[in-house]
Amino acid sequence: MSVFTAAADQSVCTPLPVLGKDVTVPLVTGGEVTYAALDYAASTPALQRVWDDVAAYAPYYGSVHRGAGYLSQLSTDLFESSRVTVAEFLGCRAGDQVIFTRSTTDSLNLLAAALPADCQVFVFETEHHASLLPWRDARVTYLNAPRTPAQAVATLERALADRDPHGPALVCVTGASNVTGELWPVKELAAAAHAHGARIVLDAAQLAPHHPVDIAELDVDWVAFSGHKLYAPFGSGVLAGRSDWLRDAEPYLAGGGASRKVARRADGAVDVEWHTTAARHEAGSPNVIGVYSIASACRALTEAGFEGLVAREQQLVSAVRAGLAEVPEVRVLSLFGDDAPRVGVISFVVEGWNSSHFAAALSAEYGIGVRDGLFCAHPLVRTLLGSDPQEVGECGAPEAEPGERSLNAIRVSFGAGTPDEHIERFVRAVKELVSQGAQWKYRTEEGRCVPDRGTAQV
Amino acid sequence: MSVFTAAADQSVCTPLPVLGKDVTVPLVTGGEVTYAALDYAASTPALQRVWDDVAAYAPYYGSVHRGAGYLSQLSTDLFESSRVTVAEFLGCRAGDQVIFTRSTTDSLNLLAAALPADCQVFVFETEHHASLLPWRDARVTYLNAPRTPAQAVATLERALADRDPHGPALVCVTGASNVTGELWPVKELAAAAHAHGARIVLDAAQLAPHHPVDIAELDVDWVAFSGHKLYAPFGSGVLAGRSDWLRDAEPYLAGGGASRKVARRADGAVDVEWHTTAARHEAGSPNVIGVYSIASACRALTEAGFEGLVAREQQLVSAVRAGLAEVPEVRVLSLFGDDAPRVGVISFVVEGWNSSHFAAALSAEYGIGVRDGLFCAHPLVRTLLGSDPQEVGECGAPEAEPGERSLNAIRVSFGAGTPDEHIERFVRAVKELVSQGAQWKYRTEEGRCVPDRGTAQV
Repeated sequence: MSVFTAAADQSVCTPLPVLGKDVTVPLVTGGEVTYAALDYAASTPALQRVWDDVAAYAPYYGSVHRGAGYLSQLSTDLFESSRVTVAEFLGCRAGDQVIFTRSTTDSLNLLAAALPADCQVFVFETEHHASLLPWRDARVTYLNAPRTPAQAVATLERALADRDPHGPALVCVTGASNVTGELWPVKELAAAAHAHGARIVLDAAQLAPHHPVDIAELDVDWVAFSGHKLYAPFGSGVLAGRSDWLRDAEPYLAGGGASRKVARRADGAVDVEWHTTAARHEAGSPNVIGVYSIASACRALTEAGFEGLVAREQQLVSAVRAGLAEVPEVRVLSLFGDDAPRVGVISFVVEGWNSSHFAAALSAEYGIGVRDGLFCAHPLVRTLLGSDPQEVGECGAPEAEPGERSLNAIRVSFGAGTPDEHIERFVRAVKELVSQGAQWKYRTEEGRCVPDRGTAQV
Repeated sequence: MSVFTAAADQSVCTPLPVLGKDVTVPLVTGGEVTYAALDYAASTPALQRVWDDVAAYAPYYGSVHRGAGYLSQLSTDLFESSRVTVAEFLGCRAGDQVIFTRSTTDSLNLLAAALPADCQVFVFETEHHASLLPWRDARVTYLNAPRTPAQAVATLERALADRDPHGPALVCVTGASNVTGELWPVKELAAAAHAHGARIVLDAAQLAPHHPVDIAELDVDWVAFSGHKLYAPFGSGVLAGRSDWLRDAEPYLAGGGASRKVARRADGAVDVEWHTTAARHEAGSPNVIGVYSIASACRALTEAGFEGLVAREQQLVSAVRAGLAEVPEVRVLSLFGDDAPRVGVISFVVEGWNSSHFAAALSAEYGIGVRDGLFCAHPLVRTLLGSDPQEVGECGAPEAEPGERSLNAIRVSFGAGTPDEHIERFVRAVKELVSQGAQWKYRTEEGRCVPDRGTAQV
């Protein structure tokens, strides 16, 4: 029986076609099954539309900005029009810059390298490492995990008000947690930041694929996101927003493309005049295919009707949460509680199970790909699990043995390409594993959790 | 009549199939013609084999390193085996690391960020900006352009011997010039560097696509190259070589993937334990498709027989040089003279022509894509042109008007995918343009040189 009991709703989209939707994988219990990719929060498959656009363009690929040939000029136009498409997708303001990077991590490292002197950074301990760690040259204040969105705003306001000296400050905050999927009160945090003379960057890695992001409406200063979580896994990311700090900063990378003029001086040294446009931070030949794939994904999501995609994803969220709620051994991790709005990212632990073994069984016995670990958000996951930081090992690697208390969690995540069947299979698999146990035993081998072929229980 | 007069040679490869080989482009003079991509030094088309590998893999794409699902594990294996393939392609030594970056520019910026304290850098003024400029925290000695390979070695030896203090030092040198195509005496420079207690990094952006590179045989400490110049334009590059400086350096990007453990301290700050493997400098989700495409290209070049590809490219070099030598108005730019060994990268100016207009005519009237400009090697091109640095404008942008002395140059470049016909057409086009003039006039519009449709001369 379907987990979807809601009546058909005209405003709800059907899944968008993605690459790999028909890929089958072997089961340890015999036979094959179509792969259920439920690790969208790590990386999504490419939309078929994005792949088709890339494949149509690839024969016309040429170097951008510099070539005199027809394909170079076509590629340059494609590259620069992709910038416009992304700006429109994000609702950029006049004067905002769109800089193409390799990923959200790269985008935030770029912004970190562009902070004005003596800028203080404020970040919640609940962030992904990509938001927690890049601020190496700044004084960073880590804020304790809030338990309500209102508490997040109050915590930030107090910290900003108390900062000493009351100089330039940047707040970095996620739009949707990569662990709990919960939405953060971005607009309210932005208002708080601005009220206290600070700026704010939105880590939209997990928000942009699941929810429209409007930089002007949210009134954030910058937005960062990754192509590979937005159905465009071709190695590009975005930092978009105010140009002043970026224009005043040293170029992120030094090299061709960022340099307007280079000349040796009489004393033998070298004078460089850098670009003041986005090119300042895009040295080296750009990843044209990666950039174009992001623009293609932005268009595809917009044209499919983002509100309809959101509505459908919310049905999937409800189905997963309802299914997990029927299993008393399952504890869903949450910072803001059951009623918090969230995207299709849900983490949980199962009493009596090592999370890595549970995830391995989902893969080997059901063909379901989830993720186990600490999700590159160690402090948050530890807070949610209540575990001692000293006990926890490498990011993503299982350390506990079967039966021990789990030191990491299981994350299921999904989005525009996820068919109902994947969600149904996942809920059924959780119920069966908990009630009947796995059919095989699992052991850790070279950091991976694998079926122990010597101990099949079938 | 063919420009190829050499008898058929069994050891010479035929061109490798590339994407776009059948693409046609419109001519301003009417009709269409297949596009002759002769800007390989900027970026190459993808090998058909590389594209086929990417297309075959794309449906199996999954997040690497962290997912429990089948496709994640398959993708992790593919990613890590690509590292092994690249290490083999470069002849890496035991203990060498292969780090995946976004480009040569990125690779050299990474190495610049990993220099030990007080490291001095020595670089010839003849380098590409990607090799000239990344060393921002170091004391850099720019060496004057040598006029022979022996002079290069002597200049370097003197500079290294004279350095004060005699501390850690790094030499950065190109393997093949992106302007003249001339080979640099890498092995001799490496020996000189090591004799003087310095290390050396090889910028192989223009060498690796045209010539086998063996890190052990050349005895260089690091090699950097780009996928997009090696028939794999999917946004990845490589830094390979000694691990000690890299292991001791702060992570290039801070974020997930590079961090092994992150925990808040009692005082509210955050402790981070970083990886010591290549992952240390690869924070964020890797560009799996980009990395795999590089490995595919390495395999394709090796399996096609790199020596045969080199032999064929040398025929093309000879044909272009012989053709240009028949046009007295053409001056080929060279640092080391006619007899210097070189790859398929040749720059020149044409007396009486603005280089940008010449390049535009090659495109508009012959469907040939070359590049005009200063090729992100401003000091070298100015030295070769004998022009005043103050006169020369933006990288790649034409500034002189028709008939004025050219302040930039034209570059033709080619490689494993170039058919004879492109070279024949190019030589014919140069001869016709010089002897008969262009059929259209050209003007600069928004930084681009375009046919002036009001002044057709046909």
